[in-house]
Amino acid sequence: MSRLFISNQRTDEMVGDLGVLDPEYCRYVGNQGQRMAWCMRDGDLLVLPMAPHAAFLGYVSETLGITPGSVDVLVPPEGGAPEGILSSDRLLDPSFLAVLRDAVAAHGIDEVVPFHFDSTISRLTEELGLADVTPGFGLLDQGGGRLLNSKATFRALAAGAGVPVPDGFVCDSRKEVERYLWERFLSHGHPAILKQDYHVAGFGNEVISPFEGVDPVGALRSVVTRSRDELAKYLADRWHWLTDGGRNRIVAERYFENSTPLCAEFRLTDDSVVFLGHGEMRMQPVLNGHIWPAPSADSPIFPDFISDGLGLCGSIHALGYRGIVSVDAVLTTTHGILVNEFNCRVSGSTHAYEFGRGIVGEDWQDRRVIIEMRRCSFPPLDRAIQVLHDHGIAFDHGTRSGVVVAVEDAGPNGGYGEYLVVAESLAQAEELERQVGTCLLLS
Amino acid sequence: MSRLFISNQRTDEMVGDLGVLDPEYCRYVGNQGQRMAWCMRDGDLLVLPMAPHAAFLGYVSETLGITPGSVDVLVPPEGGAPEGILSSDRLLDPSFLAVLRDAVAAHGIDEVVPFHFDSTISRLTEELGLADVTPGFGLLDQGGGRLLNSKATFRALAAGAGVPVPDGFVCDSRKEVERYLWERFLSHGHPAILKQDYHVAGFGNEVISPFEGVDPVGALRSVVTRSRDELAKYLADRWHWLTDGGRNRIVAERYFENSTPLCAEFRLTDDSVVFLGHGEMRMQPVLNGHIWPAPSADSPIFPDFISDGLGLCGSIHALGYRGIVSVDAVLTTTHGILVNEFNCRVSGSTHAYEFGRGIVGEDWQDRRVIIEMRRCSFPPLDRAIQVLHDHGIAFDHGTRSGVVVAVEDAGPNGGYGEYLVVAESLAQAEELERQVGTCLLLS
Repeated sequence: MSRLFISNQRTDEMVGDLGVLDPEYCRYVGNQGQRMAWCMRDGDLLVLPMAPHAAFLGYVSETLGITPGSVDVLVPPEGGAPEGILSSDRLLDPSFLAVLRDAVAAHGIDEVVPFHFDSTISRLTEELGLADVTPGFGLLDQGGGRLLNSKATFRALAAGAGVPVPDGFVCDSRKEVERYLWERFLSHGHPAILKQDYHVAGFGNEVISPFEGVDPVGALRSVVTRSRDELAKYLADRWHWLTDGGRNRIVAERYFENSTPLCAEFRLTDDSVVFLGHGEMRMQPVLNGHIWPAPSADSPIFPDFISDGLGLCGSIHALGYRGIVSVDAVLTTTHGILVNEFNCRVSGSTHAYEFGRGIVGEDWQDRRVIIEMRRCSFPPLDRAIQVLHDHGIAFDHGTRSGVVVAVEDAGPNGGYGEYLVVAESLAQAEELERQVGTCLLLS
Repeated sequence: MSRLFISNQRTDEMVGDLGVLDPEYCRYVGNQGQRMAWCMRDGDLLVLPMAPHAAFLGYVSETLGITPGSVDVLVPPEGGAPEGILSSDRLLDPSFLAVLRDAVAAHGIDEVVPFHFDSTISRLTEELGLADVTPGFGLLDQGGGRLLNSKATFRALAAGAGVPVPDGFVCDSRKEVERYLWERFLSHGHPAILKQDYHVAGFGNEVISPFEGVDPVGALRSVVTRSRDELAKYLADRWHWLTDGGRNRIVAERYFENSTPLCAEFRLTDDSVVFLGHGEMRMQPVLNGHIWPAPSADSPIFPDFISDGLGLCGSIHALGYRGIVSVDAVLTTTHGILVNEFNCRVSGSTHAYEFGRGIVGEDWQDRRVIIEMRRCSFPPLDRAIQVLHDHGIAFDHGTRSGVVVAVEDAGPNGGYGEYLVVAESLAQAEELERQVGTCLLLS
């Protein structure tokens, strides 16, 4: 029972043309590929877009208690896409395939766990002779990954399952979108959000508002359109971008200011839908990373969100999908919790759930809080870990709490990445977070 | 319990740009809208693209035993699309909407039954205040009709449900399609079929073959590509058409010569999936119309086809779709029965199933055979019916057998359309069919 992890954090089936992505962003998500290292167990294989430092791999293995030498990390040769992207030409490169085939045989791999199961992974799975043992391969092999990655599909399935979503619709007519947005939202003083059908992490979304000052959470920017003419002009200017050059429909929804983004995660197996955990995006002081479990789980309406997530997963399961599903929602100030997206792939939370389960067991969300700190600068890894130890806040196997360096820049200088801060309560986690800032700034 | 039928036989969400359709074809399918008249019962309303002759309506009502004056047929004003198309501008025309609203109130309509539940019908349903009583409205209102009309969605769902389909894949890369078609089919001497993601009745399909003489059943034409270069050239020439201008993916499948096209139909309600009937396209002497039930139902593998249809309907039901689903397949000479499409809308068989059930009950497929004759010329309607009577082959309520004029050209001259021939056995039906040809050619 060994697994082949493939950390393809961005694929063209997720985001469209990979060539238009900013190189710095590609390196950023390429480094984030290291998150999947935290899901490894003895015997697993991991394919990363960029070779991590040996010290980082040693650190992960030691923290997870992996038998030294039992796991391997492979990095395919460079390809046509920007650095950080595990593009099709890299993964299907014949020389890499030969190496991978040997490694798969040596490790006795019987499960393929990519970040996103796109058509490249489907082909790779066939090349490795693992199609027959991959649950849900049929759907994924026939474009199911793309189907389920569509925000339009989400709207349809959510409506079919009776799950509460923001008022909105799916459309490919600019005129209709203009009419709808104006009549339904803007003329009533409500902002709206426009979403490209295929994209991730808000990079295909824009907020439009009839007034200034709307914070575009989960979107690239917010644009003020005070009149129907301004709205028409905005849509004319952005239609090509919104529809990916006229290829796709767009989703238009009401946008709820001052709402809290929530997420919940599930694993779909042949037999069941398993709830894995929930979390919340941190809004203060700036939007940066998650807290798991979601502090707003205390709200009396929170259980409905988990039920709605299970309902959606029922539909997705009926389609034949097997694997991770993350369900996103917003806790609004006026309309309760509204589900606004699902993703049928590994999420930005999966590694935290795996880590939490690994250190304290299935019920870890009752016993620990994990805070994610992204885009952090720190000294070279060995030094950073030493400082954390010196201050008594490094992750400790005895207390099963403390600070973990979850991602470290794979470039020559390191010193940049992400932490996971583990504590028994949110207050303790926030105190640890404060100490991280202090000790590593002073070191 | 009265129903509003809307015979929108072609929508832009089914076929893409309606403006490119041939005007004669639009009139042809516009007339076929009359098939829905055969689904009516007392109190129903029917919206047609073209006004039928009063004599035709009287004939349908009399044949179905409808109380005179209890049903109404409405035709909206002309619009921008070719004659025969119930386009959005026609259905949502304010003056028509006012008339329709009154008629809906007068008839106590509580169910909307369009040919295709597209976004126009969704808006119309809301305008009429019927959204809340329409099962499955949530999914349909959020673009579910388009989602389920996609041939790519079919491939994914069929694979997810483990239903046997022709070897094939879904792709948006010309290079990949070329590689796949050549390596998998053409270089082995097998023809293939390429399908646009959104189209109907084979109008978006082409067969490619490494040899001459392949009959393109369910496709526009067959093209010979003997070498990989010829294949590459063909794909370069037709890529724009195949992908609807680069908007959509295409489906590429193995094509089975000399196979028999089958169909089965189901109704999905909130509680259940009901099997409605099955049929077969007639291949001899030319492909023209159906036989219901399918003569090949005698085959020992036929029940698997119905089970596969039920399996697919289970997935579609889980998505929240309610209404008619037709499932298409081919009975091959070498690979058993392979399912190759579903359509979540009223089909070209629905009126025959309704008629059969109406005249002999739920088990009509055990007691009657219906043959469809399309594209027939006949004298003006009154005269045609008289001739059928004179020859003793007109539909008779006593024997519940005979010939029905199912569609009559709505143009000023009439004299063109479709028959349904009802008999107790296929041999009797074919004898009636022969007599129709003789007596109406001589009249």
